Amino acid sequence: MKALVLLSGGLDSSTCLGLAVKKYGAEEVVALSVYYGQKHEKEIQAATAIAEYYGVKKIDLDFTPIFEQSNCSLLKRSSLNIPKESYAEQLKDNAGLPVNTYVPYRNGLFLSAAASIALSLGCEFIYYGAHADDAAGSAYPDTSNEFNQKISDAIWIGSGKQIKVEAPFVNMTKADIVKIGLDIHVPYELTWSCYEGGEKPCGKCGTCIDRARAFEMNGVKDPLL
Amino acid sequence: MKALVLLSGGLDSSTCLGLAVKKYGAEEVVALSVYYGQKHEKEIQAATAIAEYYGVKKIDLDFTPIFEQSNCSLLKRSSLNIPKESYAEQLKDNAGLPVNTYVPYRNGLFLSAAASIALSLGCEFIYYGAHADDAAGSAYPDTSNEFNQKISDAIWIGSGKQIKVEAPFVNMTKADIVKIGLDIHVPYELTWSCYEGGEKPCGKCGTCIDRARAFEMNGVKDPLL
Repeated sequence: MKALVLLSGGLDSSTCLGLAVKKYGAEEVVALSVYYGQKHEKEIQAATAIAEYYGVKKIDLDFTPIFEQSNCSLLKRSSLNIPKESYAEQLKDNAGLPVNTYVPYRNGLFLSAAASIALSLGCEFIYYGAHADDAAGSAYPDTSNEFNQKISDAIWIGSGKQIKVEAPFVNMTKADIVKIGLDIHVPYELTWSCYEGGEKPCGKCGTCIDRARAFEMNGVKDPLL
Repeated sequence: MKALVLLSGGLDSSTCLGLAVKKYGAEEVVALSVYYGQKHEKEIQAATAIAEYYGVKKIDLDFTPIFEQSNCSLLKRSSLNIPKESYAEQLKDNAGLPVNTYVPYRNGLFLSAAASIALSLGCEFIYYGAHADDAAGSAYPDTSNEFNQKISDAIWIGSGKQIKVEAPFVNMTKADIVKIGLDIHVPYELTWSCYEGGEKPCGKCGTCIDRARAFEMNGVKDPLL
């Protein structure tokens, strides 16, 4: 196996998977999906559909117990409502983190689990979909370019120089990602982004707003809407 | 809560817990123990006994599924035998890792889970017992001084500059750690190090040999022997 792709079932990670499959072929790629108690469980079903579409093996983990002490609004266990603003507009706490939507060190944790599994499978690369919009204004510190560099270094050294982390979109906007995805025919109709667990995307949460804009900027309608 | 301590139930992490409790008081310290399918389950019972001794809250995680693809000899699922040499004497693979006893990116993974939980609990510090003997000759890349620096940076940045990783023994030998632990009366009779899951320590595996030497160098007998 050559590459492990962190696959949430959203737009960014699905495009990441599309790129990795294009580069290495489906037999050399494995997807990793992590359930962590999020309200948008539908994401997980989307990840399954996308992995099937590409014909790649998928590994599932359940990290719900790790977030049992968190009150992040994205979690089922939380009593808080999911904010109805785009990332950039959300209120920030004293540490500069968006109130209620920062899942504590989620990306660092998922990448570390990815590293353990990638080493076991003999992979050389981990792909994940961090991008410039998420990192805007340091909204999510574990999606920033700086964090990507630091965790890549940590995984490279801690794996005995065997695993490289690739974040191909780290300097791109969501619109740039959609452009690439449309070029390589990522099945966006199978993806899921909305934070709410409804039948259809709510169209109002931060991730719905940002997703819709990314399609608009490419002159295309989101196939889910 | 002020500090989260990674507690395996062995000598190093138990001394780490002793130090943290001395510094912050038992009410401000939480221990995190991770079961990962290891043969030496007795370690987990030891961790429970030590957390009880110090009167600190303990959180348990089960990471067995993450290592389902690994054939590391320390895991129950592995068909390999645990080598009977000290760390330094064990055979290394092409990447310089000790054949059979490197649990893939274990420390990186455990520290990342610790970061997620520490953030949820409002802790400022994560303590863990990495030391110079483990890192000798880069035997375990995820215990080296360099790795400690990289993962500390990653967690600092990825947590929005909220969590500091403390590895107080990173430049010390196991003998140095025992010296500190004897000074602050760590209950070493409750700890467990042996890789084998027997009633008594086997006295022959790498960790038994290294533990016995650490006590000897302090002119003290290992209370388990």
